[in-house]
Amino acid sequence: MNKTKSITFLGPQGSFSEQAAQAAAAFLCPDARYAATVTIEEAINAVSQTRADFAVVPIENSIEGTVNATLDTLIFDTELYVHAQIDLPVRQNLLMHPDAGDAAPVRILSHPQGLAQSRKFLQAHYPNTLLVPSNSTSEAARVTRDDGADGSVAAVSSVFAADMYGLVVRHAGIQENDTNTTQFAVVSAVPPDGCRCGEKTSLAFSTANEPGALYKILDIFSLWNLNMTRIVSRPMKDAPGAYVFFIDIENPENSEDIHDALTMVRRKTSFFKLLGSYPVWAAV
Amino acid sequence: MNKTKSITFLGPQGSFSEQAAQAAAAFLCPDARYAATVTIEEAINAVSQTRADFAVVPIENSIEGTVNATLDTLIFDTELYVHAQIDLPVRQNLLMHPDAGDAAPVRILSHPQGLAQSRKFLQAHYPNTLLVPSNSTSEAARVTRDDGADGSVAAVSSVFAADMYGLVVRHAGIQENDTNTTQFAVVSAVPPDGCRCGEKTSLAFSTANEPGALYKILDIFSLWNLNMTRIVSRPMKDAPGAYVFFIDIENPENSEDIHDALTMVRRKTSFFKLLGSYPVWAAV
Repeated sequence: MNKTKSITFLGPQGSFSEQAAQAAAAFLCPDARYAATVTIEEAINAVSQTRADFAVVPIENSIEGTVNATLDTLIFDTELYVHAQIDLPVRQNLLMHPDAGDAAPVRILSHPQGLAQSRKFLQAHYPNTLLVPSNSTSEAARVTRDDGADGSVAAVSSVFAADMYGLVVRHAGIQENDTNTTQFAVVSAVPPDGCRCGEKTSLAFSTANEPGALYKILDIFSLWNLNMTRIVSRPMKDAPGAYVFFIDIENPENSEDIHDALTMVRRKTSFFKLLGSYPVWAAV
Repeated sequence: MNKTKSITFLGPQGSFSEQAAQAAAAFLCPDARYAATVTIEEAINAVSQTRADFAVVPIENSIEGTVNATLDTLIFDTELYVHAQIDLPVRQNLLMHPDAGDAAPVRILSHPQGLAQSRKFLQAHYPNTLLVPSNSTSEAARVTRDDGADGSVAAVSSVFAADMYGLVVRHAGIQENDTNTTQFAVVSAVPPDGCRCGEKTSLAFSTANEPGALYKILDIFSLWNLNMTRIVSRPMKDAPGAYVFFIDIENPENSEDIHDALTMVRRKTSFFKLLGSYPVWAAV
């Protein structure tokens, strides 16, 4: 008997995290229920407290960097797994109400970041339009649905938000950077099953606070010929000068190699947390 | 003859970056001229193109993580140095116009992040006040100066912005997280002078794209007993699967140790960039 799964995501409604959550659900549990949270911590804690099956939260943006709130909650505050990764391109669009007509809007709304990402396009095409900040790109879309039937208001937001609020895309892909991508972690209390070649393994560990301690651990990966694709250091809470390392490894052809290496790493570290071996999916 | 130095910073006027820039100037060049830029890249490129002596830009926030735009511009796009680091605590305050009186404001303005950082305080003390997003915390302060004499408008912003716009602090330190700190890099075309014990050295390098290549390099630091305090991997532009590592090292008592280690690292890497040995200053 399949119970409908529930997924929390970093809100609000219509956010990139919700779009990533729906992409994840297509693979994991097509008939999921969704709930927005105000913070990353709340989304993850809902899983920790068994109020949700999955949380979908950003873990790294290609321009802005690693999201420390996500790393720290996974490393220090919960006992959960990364079940999958969703890669979502950050694309912005100029959205209008379907009844708006062809005139230029008086106001264009978006989160300050959405306005900044589309600055050159907006300056070139709408030099006389007022750019108005909103709390989120999806709030901008909602206001455009509510107030934009006369064509006075437009939103810089995603196609996902356009669908959600019944808006039309007047200009698609107006962001300056076409390689801007956000990686989302699908967090679960259930470990992902298995360790397949080409997928990823994430772990966190800390070592004695002395020079060379990290290098000795990394030597273990070297010994087993494992390829590290990310390493980020995070200061230990309440232990000045001590660090935790968050590491991604490419799963090798022989999954016993990674198993053996991690057994060694676990024995040689003062703190060790295996966050899972999981697939990476592209959201389209 | 001392020429007045010029400093670009990530704007707008009154931003945390400007506050960090003034803190840096107190150490480096007390009578500096300042210029705000719209993006991190513009601030740094002004130094690269000799239109400014220093750029002050965020490099890492304790909650949000490393600022990839800063790392990537320093690593890939320019030939500049980190001249110093400024650590600035992120504190938010409720600011009012000096003529405002004691009534609750009708609207509280701030950047969505400033509102989020102060959410619990605002919900507890101003449950009936409208929270209105602005493009920046300092824009919120400016609007409060312009429109807030009747007490209807307040801003969540810094004490620095309060001073700049002649506002009074009604509630100080209303942010939820008291350890939230941003590290700013002071970027210069001139290398910082020397390598003092306790200060930091930053470098970036990449290795052959094979398992173990990074570990062999890190072994060099281990050999010389150097303590690494940050490591962040960044994907190489235009080379899928290849990585650059951005590393901070604590300068040892004997500066020859770090010199020797870096000579070795330079010889054993395919890309190497020394970003400087520099002091870390706390902004107060």
